[in-house]
Amino acid sequence: MTTDRAAEAEQQVLDRIERARSRKPRLREDRITLAHGSGGKATQTLIEAVFLEAFRNDVLARLEDGAELAADAARLAFTTDSFVVSPLFFPGGDIGDLAVNGTVNDLAVSGATPRYLSAGFIIEEGFPTADLVRITRSMADAAAVAGVRVVTGDTKVVQKGKADGCYINTAGLGTLHTDHRLGVDSVRPGDAVVVSGPIGDHGITIMLARGELDIDADVESDTAAVHGLVGDLLAAVPGVRALRDPTRGGVATVLNEIARASGVAVVVDEDTVPVREEVRGASELLGIDPLYVACEGRVVVVVDGAQAADALRVMRSHPLGVDATAIGRIADDPPGLVLLNTALGGTRIVDLLVGDPLPRIC
Amino acid sequence: MTTDRAAEAEQQVLDRIERARSRKPRLREDRITLAHGSGGKATQTLIEAVFLEAFRNDVLARLEDGAELAADAARLAFTTDSFVVSPLFFPGGDIGDLAVNGTVNDLAVSGATPRYLSAGFIIEEGFPTADLVRITRSMADAAAVAGVRVVTGDTKVVQKGKADGCYINTAGLGTLHTDHRLGVDSVRPGDAVVVSGPIGDHGITIMLARGELDIDADVESDTAAVHGLVGDLLAAVPGVRALRDPTRGGVATVLNEIARASGVAVVVDEDTVPVREEVRGASELLGIDPLYVACEGRVVVVVDGAQAADALRVMRSHPLGVDATAIGRIADDPPGLVLLNTALGGTRIVDLLVGDPLPRIC
Repeated sequence: MTTDRAAEAEQQVLDRIERARSRKPRLREDRITLAHGSGGKATQTLIEAVFLEAFRNDVLARLEDGAELAADAARLAFTTDSFVVSPLFFPGGDIGDLAVNGTVNDLAVSGATPRYLSAGFIIEEGFPTADLVRITRSMADAAAVAGVRVVTGDTKVVQKGKADGCYINTAGLGTLHTDHRLGVDSVRPGDAVVVSGPIGDHGITIMLARGELDIDADVESDTAAVHGLVGDLLAAVPGVRALRDPTRGGVATVLNEIARASGVAVVVDEDTVPVREEVRGASELLGIDPLYVACEGRVVVVVDGAQAADALRVMRSHPLGVDATAIGRIADDPPGLVLLNTALGGTRIVDLLVGDPLPRIC
Repeated sequence: MTTDRAAEAEQQVLDRIERARSRKPRLREDRITLAHGSGGKATQTLIEAVFLEAFRNDVLARLEDGAELAADAARLAFTTDSFVVSPLFFPGGDIGDLAVNGTVNDLAVSGATPRYLSAGFIIEEGFPTADLVRITRSMADAAAVAGVRVVTGDTKVVQKGKADGCYINTAGLGTLHTDHRLGVDSVRPGDAVVVSGPIGDHGITIMLARGELDIDADVESDTAAVHGLVGDLLAAVPGVRALRDPTRGGVATVLNEIARASGVAVVVDEDTVPVREEVRGASELLGIDPLYVACEGRVVVVVDGAQAADALRVMRSHPLGVDATAIGRIADDPPGLVLLNTALGGTRIVDLLVGDPLPRIC
């Protein structure tokens, strides 16, 4: 496209946004109906009144079947996650910011700069329109903080009883500007294991928000976009080998993936693992080890042992990493296993979970 | 990454695929449980036994949080779609090939070469494992035909009664190699409107597959990837202005989007619209105009009127376009409306649908 045509096209798009704003399309219905998923008039109003309003940007506003993006890097990272968390709203966040931060974080721990998101909604007939508006605003706010744009989307509506309010899928696209090779299969004996802050806040918050436990703990989800923290770390510490965000299955699951993929042992010192008192207490009542409880704004870092102090210093100077802590190290033996040196002086194997004690945590 | 390190990394990945194959992980459970969505052992087995087995490729096999891709074009197209079709299996296809073809087609009508897909599954607890395997194989087959790779994915499991078997989201990434500007806002009076084949096959097939109508028509879904057809067309006919795949809401909805976005009238001659006899008959019984019924392997083309014959010739020489037909033209007046010259000699407005006569068609 020549510059003139590009400018003309952009002006047309801006004009259209302006027209849409001046029309101020409004959803008259208090609840989402099957018609909102029909592709017809109701869908168009939903898109203009809710989605364009929340995510306003010139790429999305073209409302074409595919968003056109500039690829300003030779390598890209691409990821997807569906969110089925229950309840939809909880202390510290909701399904909307979770859906943005979750995918942003998957890109960040891949070493990518998060750039673009897609958003696919599956909504249950009868879902309150006000809740949908609240969720999309929360997504828009989280996207603004993370520096990403929601550039393409889709909405389906299913009959009452065929979903649970609202499910959201986000796919994310990021650009890779570094030659830094990261991978759970890249860690070596002698490396250190660091977490960026207290673990288990998100999972425990969700369990408590369900009201199934009669506890009133002062804890909220840690949902946050960690790309800034990760960016600082990768820029300053060349010895970072692997990064993961410990969501479903928690830190224990991430460490097991690392142990298996690299054929090493991961040794964790229980008394160094940062866990808030409230989280520890609720975990005990639930009968679950906090190591298995989901975080949504933390990162597990494996770094060359000689650079662990540097990594901690860099992470602690970022608002999301002030409580970063070294919790263990990589050893030769036994390969493929995660060992925990317990606070009581014993050692036990931390295996992958067999069941799911915390369903629909994200 | 240097070439040596890239080769080494690739070898490691191939080794891992080989190890995974020789281990032959198998899902012992006949039905999907919440544990398959936990992120733990059951999830890992599900990924290895079902998803890696179906979609085997070196990018996915790394099982990192983000897939690393090479961006070999300066411009990309990005799109997403969720699929909630009911029933999941129907004559001519299933939710799996639909989920691949639907997103491939959104990329194709954006003028992009479809390259990579993500796949996000939301599965209802108790869903038969065999059905999931069948769906993923169908996705893999469709991806192979379309020349795309499923490079990243996610699985969530929700409790019984919180979904309807299986929902799938796919996001797609394509590369744009042409300066050809396509857009529903780019059409002009004098352009011709072409459809690539008979319309409504998919929607009617789904309605009949539900068994709510006591009809036994010999019709099957037209689900197919149209990127080849579109590629031929764009390569040969510079005057193509807009492309859309008429899914939800059918051809009528696409034409309304074009009329509104370009501020033109679209005039359709009813007796030129290709509709199979079985589809026409079932539509009459359902009380719906075939113009509103979803296709999943068709494309609506608006092309410079002077190049319409060229477009038809090119399309008819592709297997998916043998029945391509000109069905109307773009006029000045009345702007924003779609007019149908009926077979009986009258003229009526074809508006956007207000309700949803065909819910969960895709």
